[in-house]
Amino acid sequence: MKTTVLFSGGKDSGLSALLMEPFFDEIELVTFTFGHDQAWKVAERAAEELGHPHLKVVFEDGVVDRAVEILISTGYPNDALNYVHSIALETLAQDCDFVADGTRRDDRAPKMDYSAIRSLEDRMHVHYLRPLAGLGGKAIRAMASRYLDFEEELSLKFPASDFEVGLRYALAERHGQKEVDRIFPGNHTHTRVIRRKRFVQEIKGQENQTCKGIQSES
Amino acid sequence: MKTTVLFSGGKDSGLSALLMEPFFDEIELVTFTFGHDQAWKVAERAAEELGHPHLKVVFEDGVVDRAVEILISTGYPNDALNYVHSIALETLAQDCDFVADGTRRDDRAPKMDYSAIRSLEDRMHVHYLRPLAGLGGKAIRAMASRYLDFEEELSLKFPASDFEVGLRYALAERHGQKEVDRIFPGNHTHTRVIRRKRFVQEIKGQENQTCKGIQSES
Repeated sequence: MKTTVLFSGGKDSGLSALLMEPFFDEIELVTFTFGHDQAWKVAERAAEELGHPHLKVVFEDGVVDRAVEILISTGYPNDALNYVHSIALETLAQDCDFVADGTRRDDRAPKMDYSAIRSLEDRMHVHYLRPLAGLGGKAIRAMASRYLDFEEELSLKFPASDFEVGLRYALAERHGQKEVDRIFPGNHTHTRVIRRKRFVQEIKGQENQTCKGIQSES
Repeated sequence: MKTTVLFSGGKDSGLSALLMEPFFDEIELVTFTFGHDQAWKVAERAAEELGHPHLKVVFEDGVVDRAVEILISTGYPNDALNYVHSIALETLAQDCDFVADGTRRDDRAPKMDYSAIRSLEDRMHVHYLRPLAGLGGKAIRAMASRYLDFEEELSLKFPASDFEVGLRYALAERHGQKEVDRIFPGNHTHTRVIRRKRFVQEIKGQENQTCKGIQSES
């Protein structure tokens, strides 16, 4: 089995991939880009650290236009975030059996409601996995820290491939920083995976039946 | 770090434990019992297969009385299921930093709403983990099958330590099978873990940085 993980290069989508690792033969990390910046390269480097193949997908023409329109008309980031997130999922669902992302229990956006999730799964014959959907922020930080070194960065200064940072850049490019300041909360930060510290390996066979789950190698 | 997992002996709470394994030094499986039957022994055997320590906890006097009262007065299982589930979580939260369960995305009960979860975490200084909260039924089956052999059994014939089966037994004992048939849906089934097929092991150290996540041992 293979799963594709919507990957920004940050600790959340990184942890999502780590959680799915033991259950899939192959993990593919995919980063979407609006096409006008090199922020996806940050995700590419993080993917290399995680040890999984990485793919960049450019949103189709019109997606960024529509997203910026939604931002301007609502004056609020959530609907635009939900829009680009659902386009990304639908795009991946066309070719994948399993699609995962790093959306968390406590996130307000992007967030798909239950009926939209079931509709996506039924229409596209895909399994949508949200490994962090039942985990709070502090638990996520503790679990990610076991495997990953990551840094928190100011989105204003450092580019990143999460959708919020992408939308802020696109909006600034078209309508100026003033519109970004009007629509998005100030001091937005994102995380960036710097290093993977630990790996796990599968053990097959009866002789290991008495071992207790994960064991540290001595 | 240690996490306690609310464990019925079935594939869902089993998968929940497997998902948390790589992130915790210690996993403890805990089965609650209403005290009048030996169904918890099924969970004890499943825990042995999983390879983690197992503990039985008997609900305090009054919990089963109150649960049966709720069943009779509502004529519906959900409120009673939510009641015993929340008592179990609160009990574990007294002594644990992390408490996990096997509640799934598509489950209707037991289910804690978001504000109740945040209240539990804040009041009890606990992290409540729902590793299956973002996974659909078919994905759960596929992922569990990779590690576990499990059987689906008719709850009417085979005892089990999931709360629904426990409540059915308690209700039958006090008010007869007719009340069970009135309140619970017919042909309820549960799963039972028979065997663990695979284990994973952690690899530390820089020299493994190029390996790709999980690897099968040759």
